[in-house]
Amino acid sequence: MFGKIALEECWTIQEELANNDPGKFVAAGTGSRLTNELLDIHGTRLKQMDENNVDFMVLSFNSPGCQGISDKSQAEAQATLANDRMEAEVMKAPNRFAAFAALSMHDPAQAAAELRRCMTEKKGFVGVLLNDYQSCGEDGNGMLYYDQPEYDVFWQAANDLEAPLMWDGRPWLDFSALGYADRLNMHILGIVTNGVLDRFPKVKLIFGHMGEHIPYDIYRIDHKLDRSRFPNMPMRKDKLVRDYFGEQLFITTSGHFSTPALMCAMGEVGVQSIMFSIDYPFESIPNACAWWDEHVSASINQHDYTNMGRNNVLKIIPRLTEEPHNLKVMTPQECRVGGLAANQGEVCYGLYNKSWNKREIKIVPS
Amino acid sequence: MFGKIALEECWTIQEELANNDPGKFVAAGTGSRLTNELLDIHGTRLKQMDENNVDFMVLSFNSPGCQGISDKSQAEAQATLANDRMEAEVMKAPNRFAAFAALSMHDPAQAAAELRRCMTEKKGFVGVLLNDYQSCGEDGNGMLYYDQPEYDVFWQAANDLEAPLMWDGRPWLDFSALGYADRLNMHILGIVTNGVLDRFPKVKLIFGHMGEHIPYDIYRIDHKLDRSRFPNMPMRKDKLVRDYFGEQLFITTSGHFSTPALMCAMGEVGVQSIMFSIDYPFESIPNACAWWDEHVSASINQHDYTNMGRNNVLKIIPRLTEEPHNLKVMTPQECRVGGLAANQGEVCYGLYNKSWNKREIKIVPS
Amino acid sequence: MFGKIALEECWTIQEELANNDPGKFVAAGTGSRLTNELLDIHGTRLKQMDENNVDFMVLSFNSPGCQGISDKSQAEAQATLANDRMEAEVMKAPNRFAAFAALSMHDPAQAAAELRRCMTEKKGFVGVLLNDYQSCGEDGNGMLYYDQPEYDVFWQAANDLEAPLMWDGRPWLDFSALGYADRLNMHILGIVTNGVLDRFPKVKLIFGHMGEHIPYDIYRIDHKLDRSRFPNMPMRKDKLVRDYFGEQLFITTSGHFSTPALMCAMGEVGVQSIMFSIDYPFESIPNACAWWDEHVSASINQHDYTNMGRNNVLKIIPRLTEEPHNLKVMTPQECRVGGLAANQGEVCYGLYNKSWNKREIKIVPS
Amino acid sequence: MFGKIALEECWTIQEELANNDPGKFVAAGTGSRLTNELLDIHGTRLKQMDENNVDFMVLSFNSPGCQGISDKSQAEAQATLANDRMEAEVMKAPNRFAAFAALSMHDPAQAAAELRRCMTEKKGFVGVLLNDYQSCGEDGNGMLYYDQPEYDVFWQAANDLEAPLMWDGRPWLDFSALGYADRLNMHILGIVTNGVLDRFPKVKLIFGHMGEHIPYDIYRIDHKLDRSRFPNMPMRKDKLVRDYFGEQLFITTSGHFSTPALMCAMGEVGVQSIMFSIDYPFESIPNACAWWDEHVSASINQHDYTNMGRNNVLKIIPRLTEEPHNLKVMTPQECRVGGLAANQGEVCYGLYNKSWNKREIKIVPS
Repeated sequence: MFGKIALEECWTIQEELANNDPGKFVAAGTGSRLTNELLDIHGTRLKQMDENNVDFMVLSFNSPGCQGISDKSQAEAQATLANDRMEAEVMKAPNRFAAFAALSMHDPAQAAAELRRCMTEKKGFVGVLLNDYQSCGEDGNGMLYYDQPEYDVFWQAANDLEAPLMWDGRPWLDFSALGYADRLNMHILGIVTNGVLDRFPKVKLIFGHMGEHIPYDIYRIDHKLDRSRFPNMPMRKDKLVRDYFGEQLFITTSGHFSTPALMCAMGEVGVQSIMFSIDYPFESIPNACAWWDEHVSASINQHDYTNMGRNNVLKIIPRLTEEPHNLKVMTPQECRVGGLAANQGEVCYGLYNKSWNKREIKIVPS
Repeated sequence: MFGKIALEECWTIQEELANNDPGKFVAAGTGSRLTNELLDIHGTRLKQMDENNVDFMVLSFNSPGCQGISDKSQAEAQATLANDRMEAEVMKAPNRFAAFAALSMHDPAQAAAELRRCMTEKKGFVGVLLNDYQSCGEDGNGMLYYDQPEYDVFWQAANDLEAPLMWDGRPWLDFSALGYADRLNMHILGIVTNGVLDRFPKVKLIFGHMGEHIPYDIYRIDHKLDRSRFPNMPMRKDKLVRDYFGEQLFITTSGHFSTPALMCAMGEVGVQSIMFSIDYPFESIPNACAWWDEHVSASINQHDYTNMGRNNVLKIIPRLTEEPHNLKVMTPQECRVGGLAANQGEVCYGLYNKSWNKREIKIVPS
Repeated sequence: MFGKIALEECWTIQEELANNDPGKFVAAGTGSRLTNELLDIHGTRLKQMDENNVDFMVLSFNSPGCQGISDKSQAEAQATLANDRMEAEVMKAPNRFAAFAALSMHDPAQAAAELRRCMTEKKGFVGVLLNDYQSCGEDGNGMLYYDQPEYDVFWQAANDLEAPLMWDGRPWLDFSALGYADRLNMHILGIVTNGVLDRFPKVKLIFGHMGEHIPYDIYRIDHKLDRSRFPNMPMRKDKLVRDYFGEQLFITTSGHFSTPALMCAMGEVGVQSIMFSIDYPFESIPNACAWWDEHVSASINQHDYTNMGRNNVLKIIPRLTEEPHNLKVMTPQECRVGGLAANQGEVCYGLYNKSWNKREIKIVPS
Repeated sequence: MFGKIALEECWTIQEELANNDPGKFVAAGTGSRLTNELLDIHGTRLKQMDENNVDFMVLSFNSPGCQGISDKSQAEAQATLANDRMEAEVMKAPNRFAAFAALSMHDPAQAAAELRRCMTEKKGFVGVLLNDYQSCGEDGNGMLYYDQPEYDVFWQAANDLEAPLMWDGRPWLDFSALGYADRLNMHILGIVTNGVLDRFPKVKLIFGHMGEHIPYDIYRIDHKLDRSRFPNMPMRKDKLVRDYFGEQLFITTSGHFSTPALMCAMGEVGVQSIMFSIDYPFESIPNACAWWDEHVSASINQHDYTNMGRNNVLKIIPRLTEEPHNLKVMTPQECRVGGLAANQGEVCYGLYNKSWNKREIKIVPS
């Protein structure tokens, strides 16, 4: 599919690697590659985007980022530094990149101020990236969650700035196979059931990995909450968690390239809640795109497909349609999906060209 | 689901029963019920619509109608009579009913004129209903198909009047279980491959019974046409049949209450191509609505669900949003879908109320 | 569907209510009903089973049961007491009930001995029920997990006795809407990745709530484990977690009546890994059965449907086919599924009878 | 997937090309390729089978074959000739090929005799291939259908010999995109509703192209037949058409590589009714296998997948498990499905190898 947009894509700076070099935790022999890919934007990354028809990436400061720095001042300084660098990088190619702001979440008012700075004084930012809870305390084992009333000043700012919030999981005692999601989904549910989305109706939360299992469990979540209806639960009594999807809750496919899971998410939370993403460089760009371009295109209709692959993002983050990014909605035909059409006089064999040595791409007539 | 719209719903007049009383062909003992239900609009039909939350019906003159009358003058007179009666009936309750015009298709110019009369001089009409081919000839065995160039004058009128065309199958040597669809789908494909939709880009075709198998076979249809690319086939060379769905081709669920087939249609031609319908009185209103309200609501998300149950119709037939019908788009919550929410202090057991003696309906707070 | 078997169904004894009366934690006014339903077997429970065509239930001691008792001797005594009572109750109607043994998991050897006692000296037992981790320590906050080598003596016994292990979640700081699953799935994964299933190839684990999200995440779990391949992870290097489903890992639908989630589980782990269950009395029997009998039967074919509703259990727990339970495999027609067939001469309207006042059940000719 | 079996694969002989050279009807410049591929068995065909992990093919005499010969004697002679040639070819490599017998259907007794000859005197045959109706009459426009009582002598032979019947569509006024299926499905339904399967319970019908739309329409077919229950319809009154699937009716994926259609067929008629096939050389082997090996494997679980790709055939045509074919059931792991497992110490990137230049195949440890 031409024109794909990906929005859960990681990047880091040299100064962060001292705190957190994920290259140290991966399979032997692959660490330096990962570190280099995190530092790079306009080299290998852009080349692979071109090769795989990824039109645009929204970059995020790599997890745990500022959320992993338990010292308040240090975390705040790191956020400022990262955001300034990110702005500079994005503005080198604003037709290909935008950024989610990194924030220290120790002090909600300071987080609000830094978000405001990014969204109003800079040009490359279209929202926020939060890496689950904020570490704190002398031993670094404290955990701040943002579903409590003292964070309302931050939520107010996100609401007023119409800055969508992207979420990523982070390590604790566990591993990305399942543990990150198990903890992040509780944080998200905490924010919803505590009524944050009701008090701040312009706030939008986006979370990856096919929704950190929430779509699969949404029946049970709603059923249990509905049956119990805790008298003091602040969430609106006339809504279910399901009702926030497509309006204030959204998910991406990052790092979760399963077609049955995608179908389930479409069934439970709907196409309008779902966006393509990769999770680069923790996932490979060609692998994610092979799944999307071949498997997914063969399983769903072209309208839903191009909406999830591109157009939904532009509704959920309308700032991307403005200067300096200027992204436009594309039709299925512009995305070159909707079947394989041979040139006149040629024969089409389906997925392969006539020599059967490469995949066919639909030819769009000029 | 509150607010459902159904648009493949049959009605007839006493004068037609002499030619065609379908009550004669159904199971013993049920014929007179069927005949009475076809003649009725504001009695049993409306009562059942109310009981089953069907907000609105677009009525069609029962198959084969004028298409079954092989004498040209007689067919034309029947169309005029049926349309005048239909207008009178619809205008008794234009907030609940509209009509598709009946047409004789012997003479394309006359068909165009009658369509123009209905769409401009009358208020209750929003499109056309065609019952497959037009019978003709002395013995009544001739068959006129509308995919040939001499029908362009008719297609031009439908295009200019922006009158969508609803299609129904009809008996020949076969039976509604499968044969009607097998013949109607070839007529539809004939129209598409002969380039009618390309020459008349405002023409929209709607066909029922979950698309007369076309969605299930769309891969093979496109693959075969694409591979062969008959040099003289008039359809645009840069499009596949699939590409017309959601723009000029649409389907309904009438008489085909299968969830796996609906899921397949959603996969192949997309939510934006699909609309709920019943096929009353050949199908029962409560049965169709039980399927839609219970089964389908449990299998797909609330956004796609309310779009297929109501809102898509208003995009595809925008005349329904104007005087005298004035239909409005509804949100999932207005349609009372999206989960079962108990009253405060009450316990919800899911599909049933607390006495387990009736189905729960979601309570919408005022 | 006639002949349904449910296997994640709770029961308790008066002596346990002091430790754990779940009636205290549910919505106001419903606690005593819940407590009474937990204590009952042959009254309301059996009546509702009859009304809803549940042929058979495998009973489990209610969560957290012995796992919630941090004192070793007390937990062991409670297990013995519960098992003796359960045997007595089941043997009153062994054609309708069997039991999973309750165990204290403080001492793996003692757990093995008690399991052996139940499986060899008693007649009503067909496996084990474990409620996640074992609480321990003076303050009750210790947590024992069974994926460590010291539990091999227990796994050896389960393997030799061919006793399948049913798992249920349990409260900690969280709630059944999502938190129980988030913790239990890590315990299950711990057992698998630590190689327990490889060392004990006859061990079968069954977990409810549509697999505690594992099916939805199985792509990501396998992909992450595969990519990292921790050099010291004991699980077989030539297998993925996915490969254990249908052979040593199984799931039930208990308390998770979502059709899209079921479809996803069928896509990822397959029909042969899935069994119907209710989670009574935390879920209502008619509600679970309305979902299964109406929604699910309309979404999947009759062979897979009757296998998941009944026959799979008999393959996974073959002891149920022997004395004193003697359960038999049933065909779709014996389960009265596969379409609605009217009596000769009668008309069928689909889901409803001809008076439209009750659901049709297929008539099976004698 | 290793070990795939395909069973709707065409082959012809030089003597047939005079009557019917399909190479004359395909896109310009591709005719001679098609003709050559039809004539070949052990050359290009076998090479492509090896390259694409197709273990075995059951060959059929190309459509319309003997069904297209309206002269009785000529048709019978052609069948004998074709079967003798087919036996000789298959026995050159019986571990890779078997055959369905070609039959003239002018005279049911003669058809029965020729079938008996193939199934008892020859070694390579495992059933019959029928190309829809038998042409007859002086002008060749007569059509014989086999659902009438005079064909019972043929059905009796097929029943006694336990010879499954493969069906293919054939040209008339229409085209393979949709028309073939529209006519063949009526023939199949004629056989079922006329009670042939009831009178001959060992008869099994197999039809391709994802069931010639019958699975998509099975709800409506059964509903309409059930509602009408023609008093004289010979089919058993206590069964629906749906009930014959998986026992006497089976379908293949030949020439219909649509994942949503496959999912629908799985939903309506079940995995046990479905088998992989290609329709070579009208479809390309690598294209069909790319769909099956990549798309389908990513959409369904490995058990159902290997059953449809191989094992179901061995249950439906058990003769394939005997001399001289000796095919064996294979596990998912033997078929190398169930996830991508890297070699120890290597990193797996999912669908691609570490250089991203070719697809990964799962490595099975020895």
